Amino acid sequence: MILSPRSDTDWMQAAIALALRGRALSSPNPSVGCILVRDGRVVGRGWTMRGGRPHGEAMALAAAGDAARGATAYVTLEPCAHDSERGPACADLLIAAGVARVVIGTQDPDPRTNGAGIARLEAAGITVQSGVAEASARASLSGFITRQTLGRPFVTLKLATSLDGQIALADGSSQWITGEQARAHTHVERAHHDAILVGGGTYRADAPRLDVRLAGLETRSPRRVLLSRMGDAPAGWTALASPHDIASLAGVGWLMVEGGAETAAAFLAIDSVDRLLLYRAPVLIGRGKAALGDIGLGNLVDAHGRWRLDNTRLLGNDRMESYQRIR
Amino acid sequence: MILSPRSDTDWMQAAIALALRGRALSSPNPSVGCILVRDGRVVGRGWTMRGGRPHGEAMALAAAGDAARGATAYVTLEPCAHDSERGPACADLLIAAGVARVVIGTQDPDPRTNGAGIARLEAAGITVQSGVAEASARASLSGFITRQTLGRPFVTLKLATSLDGQIALADGSSQWITGEQARAHTHVERAHHDAILVGGGTYRADAPRLDVRLAGLETRSPRRVLLSRMGDAPAGWTALASPHDIASLAGVGWLMVEGGAETAAAFLAIDSVDRLLLYRAPVLIGRGKAALGDIGLGNLVDAHGRWRLDNTRLLGNDRMESYQRIR
Repeated sequence: MILSPRSDTDWMQAAIALALRGRALSSPNPSVGCILVRDGRVVGRGWTMRGGRPHGEAMALAAAGDAARGATAYVTLEPCAHDSERGPACADLLIAAGVARVVIGTQDPDPRTNGAGIARLEAAGITVQSGVAEASARASLSGFITRQTLGRPFVTLKLATSLDGQIALADGSSQWITGEQARAHTHVERAHHDAILVGGGTYRADAPRLDVRLAGLETRSPRRVLLSRMGDAPAGWTALASPHDIASLAGVGWLMVEGGAETAAAFLAIDSVDRLLLYRAPVLIGRGKAALGDIGLGNLVDAHGRWRLDNTRLLGNDRMESYQRIR
Repeated sequence: MILSPRSDTDWMQAAIALALRGRALSSPNPSVGCILVRDGRVVGRGWTMRGGRPHGEAMALAAAGDAARGATAYVTLEPCAHDSERGPACADLLIAAGVARVVIGTQDPDPRTNGAGIARLEAAGITVQSGVAEASARASLSGFITRQTLGRPFVTLKLATSLDGQIALADGSSQWITGEQARAHTHVERAHHDAILVGGGTYRADAPRLDVRLAGLETRSPRRVLLSRMGDAPAGWTALASPHDIASLAGVGWLMVEGGAETAAAFLAIDSVDRLLLYRAPVLIGRGKAALGDIGLGNLVDAHGRWRLDNTRLLGNDRMESYQRIR
């Protein structure tokens, strides 16, 4: 199919969309999207496979075969420069395939690559451009980049509230504040996370399954983590003694915190929430259970400038809002 | 100026926009907008003047003069059929001016007119069409229609909250959650209300001025009402013993409730809130002061189906949302 001319940014956004297919599945490796384009035609596409291999570039090059020669490769993350027992470095694969140009979303913070992939490509005479649609590319790689830069998972805090910020009636009932579409959206979000964490109160009150109840995605249910000061957890759960310890969750790049109010507040109090995922139903509850416990805010001035809306969507009668922590 | 062809609905929306100019100023009369159109040209415009006279139709006809002959009159409310010492009935004025067609937003629930205006126009050979852009027309007349149908003012509840539904820190500080643009928007809303009500707690804590602090609108500051069980109020304020008594606020069609949480809850508990006006800042507060006290909700099922978003707007970093009570 001949496509109308697209910009580098358009192609990069398409590569980012591809990368989403491998999100959380590819952990602990990042899910990287790759599109090979020659003469305005897509000749190969790939994204990181389950467990991290093959990489998106290898998959796209295998699909393209000889058509990769002279093509432009759009890759969301700098191609790796390190050989591993699981396969050759992607930079070398791109060189061997004869691609003419490599367009990169963002540089790889992994010290084994960090610029070395770009250097190797350029040394082979390939034109390299980095930083295209970089904010979007980085957002798609947050689980990996936050691990590399802050040494811990990227944390999404999910809250489902009434218009007045309540998550339940005073008697604890919360089924249902939001509707079916919002709940289905939560299940898709779960499939994009490596692990989901709840506090002891939520565990005891709801004994939540926290699985992905969507046809075709059942196998994408994330690990379940219980915040438990005593460090004990039931079978099938991982215990975590404190929000300070999330770095110890091996292989977890994307962590979703699902409740309740005290657990959510504990993560906010130590500034370990990177994204707020809010579902808001057009209902009023009045005196019920507030979404958050004490987050340690002493002055309103300190509350400002921390959150930026990056996505919003109507789901039935409810509104989804996603806010990113401004750092 | 020759305009491109517009539909009856377009013209009615323009008449509704005109009516907003007189909102609250015209009380206890409704503010009615009127546009006279001949051959696609506007030949006269009017809206209800301060204190209720002249009516919008009279103003538009005076502006049009002879050009009204053969024109179509777009009027947000059915033209009145009752003479008063303050002027002749608008139905008679339209007949005398020779308009050919009258398009009406909604019928007048006032028993002195209620269909009689339409009947008189039709008896004079004028083509009448009623119910054009009716929902918008009725919304613009809510202060009047609610008085006529429910015997009380139309009540807007204003809340300014954090993302987690708090209106202040635990120590009571609330300056500022929302930013300048949201606060300016509140002042415009105040100018569109006949009276603003607060509870004793808010009065004692803030001694609010509740005036309109916008250049050119200072004279549009509404009456101040204090909810006070003892029935006492300081100079310049009207005392109201209970939310059940709002019908007694003479001449008040548009009432805004500005706080605090217990006062807001008291109005919601007796289902006397017709519109929610929410300002939401992208901040988190945690354990603070919740927006609402007990509204008497016993079951989540009862919370649904009551509120419909009818307007939303970004004001600086804050989001304004307006919800109408579905009745």
